Amino acid sequence: MAIDRALLVPALNNIATRLRIDSVRATSEAASGHPTSCCSMADIMAALFFAEMRFDPKEPQNPDSDRFVLSKGHAAPILYAAWAEAGAFDRSELLKLRRIDSDLEGHPTPRLPFVDVATGSLGQGICAAIGIALNARRIKSAYRTYVLLGDGESAEGSVWEAANVGSADALDNLCGITDVNGLGQSRPTMWNHQMEQFERRWSAFGWNAIVIDGHDMNAILDALEQARNTKGRPTMILARTIKGKGVSFVEGKDGWHGKAFKKGEEMDRAIAELEKQFVPVPESGPAANLAAQIPKPASAPRAVVTPKPVAPPAYKLGEEVATREAYGAAIAKLGESDSRVVALDADVKNSTFSEKFEKALPDRFYETFIAEQVMVGAAMGMAARGAIPFPSTFACFLTRAADFIRMAAISNVNVKLAGSHAGVSIGEDGPSQMALEDLAMCRAEPNCTVLYPSDAVSTERLVALMAYHPGLAYMRTSRPKTPVIYSNDETFTIGGLKVLRESDSDVCTVIGAGVTLFETLKAYDQLKAAGTSIRVIDLYSVAPVDRDGLIKAGRATKGRLITVEDHYAAGGIGDAVAEAVADAGLTVHRLAVREIPRSGKPEELLERFGISAAHIVEEVRALAGKAGQAGRAG
Amino acid sequence: MAIDRALLVPALNNIATRLRIDSVRATSEAASGHPTSCCSMADIMAALFFAEMRFDPKEPQNPDSDRFVLSKGHAAPILYAAWAEAGAFDRSELLKLRRIDSDLEGHPTPRLPFVDVATGSLGQGICAAIGIALNARRIKSAYRTYVLLGDGESAEGSVWEAANVGSADALDNLCGITDVNGLGQSRPTMWNHQMEQFERRWSAFGWNAIVIDGHDMNAILDALEQARNTKGRPTMILARTIKGKGVSFVEGKDGWHGKAFKKGEEMDRAIAELEKQFVPVPESGPAANLAAQIPKPASAPRAVVTPKPVAPPAYKLGEEVATREAYGAAIAKLGESDSRVVALDADVKNSTFSEKFEKALPDRFYETFIAEQVMVGAAMGMAARGAIPFPSTFACFLTRAADFIRMAAISNVNVKLAGSHAGVSIGEDGPSQMALEDLAMCRAEPNCTVLYPSDAVSTERLVALMAYHPGLAYMRTSRPKTPVIYSNDETFTIGGLKVLRESDSDVCTVIGAGVTLFETLKAYDQLKAAGTSIRVIDLYSVAPVDRDGLIKAGRATKGRLITVEDHYAAGGIGDAVAEAVADAGLTVHRLAVREIPRSGKPEELLERFGISAAHIVEEVRALAGKAGQAGRAG
Repeated sequence: MAIDRALLVPALNNIATRLRIDSVRATSEAASGHPTSCCSMADIMAALFFAEMRFDPKEPQNPDSDRFVLSKGHAAPILYAAWAEAGAFDRSELLKLRRIDSDLEGHPTPRLPFVDVATGSLGQGICAAIGIALNARRIKSAYRTYVLLGDGESAEGSVWEAANVGSADALDNLCGITDVNGLGQSRPTMWNHQMEQFERRWSAFGWNAIVIDGHDMNAILDALEQARNTKGRPTMILARTIKGKGVSFVEGKDGWHGKAFKKGEEMDRAIAELEKQFVPVPESGPAANLAAQIPKPASAPRAVVTPKPVAPPAYKLGEEVATREAYGAAIAKLGESDSRVVALDADVKNSTFSEKFEKALPDRFYETFIAEQVMVGAAMGMAARGAIPFPSTFACFLTRAADFIRMAAISNVNVKLAGSHAGVSIGEDGPSQMALEDLAMCRAEPNCTVLYPSDAVSTERLVALMAYHPGLAYMRTSRPKTPVIYSNDETFTIGGLKVLRESDSDVCTVIGAGVTLFETLKAYDQLKAAGTSIRVIDLYSVAPVDRDGLIKAGRATKGRLITVEDHYAAGGIGDAVAEAVADAGLTVHRLAVREIPRSGKPEELLERFGISAAHIVEEVRALAGKAGQAGRAG
Repeated sequence: MAIDRALLVPALNNIATRLRIDSVRATSEAASGHPTSCCSMADIMAALFFAEMRFDPKEPQNPDSDRFVLSKGHAAPILYAAWAEAGAFDRSELLKLRRIDSDLEGHPTPRLPFVDVATGSLGQGICAAIGIALNARRIKSAYRTYVLLGDGESAEGSVWEAANVGSADALDNLCGITDVNGLGQSRPTMWNHQMEQFERRWSAFGWNAIVIDGHDMNAILDALEQARNTKGRPTMILARTIKGKGVSFVEGKDGWHGKAFKKGEEMDRAIAELEKQFVPVPESGPAANLAAQIPKPASAPRAVVTPKPVAPPAYKLGEEVATREAYGAAIAKLGESDSRVVALDADVKNSTFSEKFEKALPDRFYETFIAEQVMVGAAMGMAARGAIPFPSTFACFLTRAADFIRMAAISNVNVKLAGSHAGVSIGEDGPSQMALEDLAMCRAEPNCTVLYPSDAVSTERLVALMAYHPGLAYMRTSRPKTPVIYSNDETFTIGGLKVLRESDSDVCTVIGAGVTLFETLKAYDQLKAAGTSIRVIDLYSVAPVDRDGLIKAGRATKGRLITVEDHYAAGGIGDAVAEAVADAGLTVHRLAVREIPRSGKPEELLERFGISAAHIVEEVRALAGKAGQAGRAG
């Protein structure tokens, strides 16, 4: 960074102008996109990419590379333009913006090698940046993390969750920049250009808040330098900018959000204005080719992490252990063998038992307090940088982060969610604490693995499997203690199931998981005593399901399948099984929670809401009495 | 409020002691619950209920009554104790806490007449309180709204969304109290007793922040008075308290969250200590019976709102109108006829077309800016006070409020959600802006009506139906323009469907909704031209579905049913239809989005992700070639 400002600033200004032109051209070619949102932040991008960050445009995933997250994802065109300017790919690609044959999508996704997490749902990028900054500590790297937010975006609560964690964790390797252009999508933002509103908030949340003119290159460079030199807290640069900066007929005007200039006269006029803004610079000398001078990350060779072997589970058959407790023990054990494994908590570690991980590995345990969005968002960032994060809370409170889970699916990151306290079987705490939609939420994502163990052994085995299965995964655990039913050497597979009871005379198959598996086993005993056999399946893998195994069981039991789940009727196990067996012409009878539950004892609630052993027995009897009717096609 | 402080304070202190004793007894009897979380806030509750609020314990729903929201819902026992003390019900009921035969649930729900919205998912009560305070303006009432938060809860981003809206809307009829007891569930909170951390944040967010000792009755009364006299902004009283206050062996101790005292020696010891804290007060005189002196709300008789007749839709057959635009027009029209109808926006009103409502009825249009949680939370509060709120945003961003939607279902409030930009058909913006899980999210709630209109006429008709259908409802709208297919006098029902094409020789039924209905109609034309007839259904009501109508169509078309939806495969239309027809032995073939999509033109994406007319034609042909195989039971 030894280039004289007198040379550097005009060179950066010219880069900013080029980035504006690129953004205008690309969006006009696509006939959609957000050129004015790009123009307001062009000067900041020029300074960040060509005078501040250390990275290798040809190796964006270098573990010691500085990271940049575009939290205001709709400004994607200028992100792409900056990477093209840096030399990551040919500038001509920019004109393929938003085309189905290009990875330069409308909002950034990790299909592009230089994008860590998908953005475009506002307020999430800064949460991911928290995780990326925390990861630098885990891998002992000096990389810095930069995140650029919009001002409108700052209304999202998740931004303030991130603000709290950033200051509580003293993340001085993190620098945010808010592009305060004053205009939202449909109107001026809540605070327009009242910079003091932003400054007050970020200062109050413990950040080093710096207000600057976001079009003054010297001010931007100074602020970035100050951020770099600030210890003990993160910095938020609050840059006052003009939306559409550089194109006079849209500058600061409402009604231009998300509108491309029309190709032809309108675009030509914008480009012509921008081109006039190039300033004369020396054709050679220190600032002549800034892209070629981007400092590479100073990285020592890093050893590949090789997990140590993990001992098999050590439970006793019949021992009573809640799956949530087995989960906590399992992640702790896994964490001891693999330094990439980390755990995150939202102040319920003594309920989810992630406290076992904290006790064993305090340095890799992250407390976000009661803030589920930043917990999942930070996990996304960590996963993008090579960690294997297990964020956990009550399963019902993972719905707080549903939009983050959606974006984690789009990002295809290795986040391993875990939710405890599934269903009505939690009992007295009542419906607000019961997860009855979590399977639906996670199954909806087409690339999310969903696991639901019933005992401690399967929990431990499945935790290890989910850790190394690529992509997003979710494990559902239960509050009540349940007996260990599998021996310690039992093997499980993602997409598998276990047939626990079977005979040649089974009149139907009953499929349970978690607490309902034990209700099913009770029903089995009662029916057996009365001379009726049923097949019992533990559907520990809810997504994917073992289609063949389910069809085989259904066919062997007169086409009769019953699912029983401590979850609402829509989107859970019943639906999963129904879709799997539909092509075989099989249908499913479902026992599930079909109304809003209430407080009560667990066993009372299983009974009241129709998923107890008694209800299973009744359903089996009703079905078995219908012999010969199964499979009728109407 | 004319009682002398020298008399009032000891009387309130005694009430606080009684509330502590009640909370301890009830939780010990239930053998679960949060007595220490109640004890920290007992003095505040005594002051609020017996020296500040105007309400009628026998008529808690009086429209001019002051409102109290317990945002830290786990302190439910003291809420119940306060209402019992006020005379709402007999104190002996308190010992039924958390029992299946009592409405005194583990966390408050509106099964109780004095609870507006269910709480227990932290950070939501204050959002509802924003809506309740805004509602006072709508109905021109002088009622004040009080909301009590936990300190740990303040880490939730939704709290800061509410903080922004509260100050932006200058809600001086709103008073928050934060019970800063310093301890979370599993550890000390982020800021423990650093009161300045709270004060800085609330002040920065524009609130009148008052720090007090939360066990000093005079200080509490002073702060409440100051709040009442503060104009132009809401007040947040930050009360430094001791968790477990009054029971010396748990006071300020970690590890006592959510633990009832064991009945017997442990509980007796706690009660004995508390009983010693009663102070002598006069047996008669002005402060002898505060409960009997609670000031009733000063309410004038209010006219019952009678909606004016609404004109029928006025579209032309074949006219191209996006359902999102028809939605905006419909809510504006409805709002003109019914003063209870309000609309809320998260800065996308020009995309959802809720701007049509704002233009017509600016006083009943609420802008929360980009903050979906407070948007839905405020709608919950408004609905609880008699409004019919339509909060809308992009459907994908409603997932940001998934946990609020979950609690709205538990609260059984009349919130009418609307989400635009459904599915891949939005095109170039890419997956972050596409709603592909919204049907799954809303269908999962057992009491949520889910509507998905395909044209402008059905949109307008369904908006009117959902407004007056009790409870939670969701409408999904689409981005592209689609032709009007229904005449203006067509009627629709919640739980209905429309058969658009049928003949005696239909080889299968294809069920679409939204954009896929038009793909289905295209497929119909292509198949028809080739000599094959299909039945075409518009499934505009996704929850509930018309089971009989679907079964009838399935049976009439050789048992063959195909669903096609611009949504992921799990939890949407395919699952809804599959469950409805399962008992009739029918199965469903599903066309849905089965992988993470990407940017591209809408028609390219429908084709790429398997839900275009061409895919429907192909699926029909594949099925029709399987004649005789349908319904096989394996």
